[in-house]
Amino acid sequence: MIGSDFGAWMGSVQARMEGALARLLPAAGIAPARLHEAMRYATLEGGKRVRPLLCFAAGEACGAPAERLEIAAAALEMIHVYSLVHDDLPCMDNDVLRRGKPTVHLEYDEATALLAGDALQALAFQLLAEHRLADDPAAQLDMVGALAAAAGTRGMAGGQQIDLEATGKAMSLPELEAMHIRKTGALIRASVLLGAGCGRNLAAAEHSGLDHYAKCVGLAFQVVDDVLDADSSTATLGKTAGKDSKQGKPTYVSAMGSAHAREFAEELRRDAHAALAPLGARAPRLHELADFVVLRKF
Amino acid sequence: MIGSDFGAWMGSVQARMEGALARLLPAAGIAPARLHEAMRYATLEGGKRVRPLLCFAAGEACGAPAERLEIAAAALEMIHVYSLVHDDLPCMDNDVLRRGKPTVHLEYDEATALLAGDALQALAFQLLAEHRLADDPAAQLDMVGALAAAAGTRGMAGGQQIDLEATGKAMSLPELEAMHIRKTGALIRASVLLGAGCGRNLAAAEHSGLDHYAKCVGLAFQVVDDVLDADSSTATLGKTAGKDSKQGKPTYVSAMGSAHAREFAEELRRDAHAALAPLGARAPRLHELADFVVLRKF
Repeated sequence: MIGSDFGAWMGSVQARMEGALARLLPAAGIAPARLHEAMRYATLEGGKRVRPLLCFAAGEACGAPAERLEIAAAALEMIHVYSLVHDDLPCMDNDVLRRGKPTVHLEYDEATALLAGDALQALAFQLLAEHRLADDPAAQLDMVGALAAAAGTRGMAGGQQIDLEATGKAMSLPELEAMHIRKTGALIRASVLLGAGCGRNLAAAEHSGLDHYAKCVGLAFQVVDDVLDADSSTATLGKTAGKDSKQGKPTYVSAMGSAHAREFAEELRRDAHAALAPLGARAPRLHELADFVVLRKF
Repeated sequence: MIGSDFGAWMGSVQARMEGALARLLPAAGIAPARLHEAMRYATLEGGKRVRPLLCFAAGEACGAPAERLEIAAAALEMIHVYSLVHDDLPCMDNDVLRRGKPTVHLEYDEATALLAGDALQALAFQLLAEHRLADDPAAQLDMVGALAAAAGTRGMAGGQQIDLEATGKAMSLPELEAMHIRKTGALIRASVLLGAGCGRNLAAAEHSGLDHYAKCVGLAFQVVDDVLDADSSTATLGKTAGKDSKQGKPTYVSAMGSAHAREFAEELRRDAHAALAPLGARAPRLHELADFVVLRKF
């Protein structure tokens, strides 16, 4: 299913995003320099950029200009990165390795890591507000609201709190799913919807198809993450492997076993493909990304 | 200068804000309940609501409806409260008392306090995006951008970083002023501009007058804070008194002495009044708030 040019497309989006993020983050040399350096350290040269890839893939399916997509994708990535920086803090997961590098609070200090995360969140909203991303400013306000909702208690921050409280407890599959829909699913869904929002107006069936696709991919992403966390090495992942089971956190692997979790991810992949039907042949990258998310090895 | 009805006006805005915040914050009973409770604990029943008061005062001078102002003011207060929750964390100021109550990380735990602050920031932007605050949605996007800039590295988070790095160092007055313009000044300025943004379009002179007023009041607020921190008791302030000097942080009192700091605040108060000239007689509450900020005892 993944086309021969998918790797090149992915590489070009990733390279474009590296340039955009480097340009949109505050320069390291200006005051407060240490804060700006920490924000750049956390954000640049790291990660697969899954949220920007989904944003570009959805945007391209809707005819959105790349100049808009890179702003929306940068905002999404900054929200994601801020959550990683805060999640790694000693009072949360207390982690030492992220994207193959020491975590921000180790490389700098805890207070700087806290503020770098705070400032990345603010910058994400500043980008969405200060650049023209949609023809209709009211539609752009809706995009700001969608990102904020995805970051808040009905989204990422709420999922993180549920995750914290779940340590050492068993969770039913519906509870696990409810947690992950917030913790990772909400921002992945926002990635698809913000990308689409940068393009033409969609028919209702196209919009709900994209939304269902995003929900499937978001959940599949987490299921595969759990499988990889259980089955891979730290060197392969670039982050501490086996952490969830060591911390006694419920995962799809602990809840249904590795084999069933893989099957579940497969099922979500099929659903994601099917959900794209209303977009016809216009969404090749979204199809490929559904495969990439489920079939990835790191 | 402060009219006989100022106390009643202030009380009515504070009561209105208590109701608005209680309504706009996620309910304590819904999941994740502990996170929602911590957000409510941090935000409700506390503080003078200086930013909401400035927002209402500026908005009323510009004919803004109260239904818009309470949304903008709630967003401003949530940004302020999130910064207090994070500043009080052990890795920052490690404080135990805030608004007369144990700090959030003591009443709950560090991880919940971190996430409550994160979620309050997201909710502030969600409110500004999801409610109609200006007739022109493009102008409303500018308001979102202004709040984000005030919260970010050119504003509050940047000022906090400079503050952290300043501990134990001497600062020149221009350095001190540059720090405080970011740390407290930016959000106070945003309070005035967002309030005005909820109302009619302003002439250029009115807008720049309001902006200059906001800068003077923002700086005066910090100068008076420093004086009160040095001269008052913990019981009067409802937060730990004398903390700055104990932590070796540069303040207006350490830089120019208590008497000169009071004179400087007086000078800023006069400038604030003068800056309101383009608004004529339409801004009585802004005049009174300039007096209130400088003459307050807590």
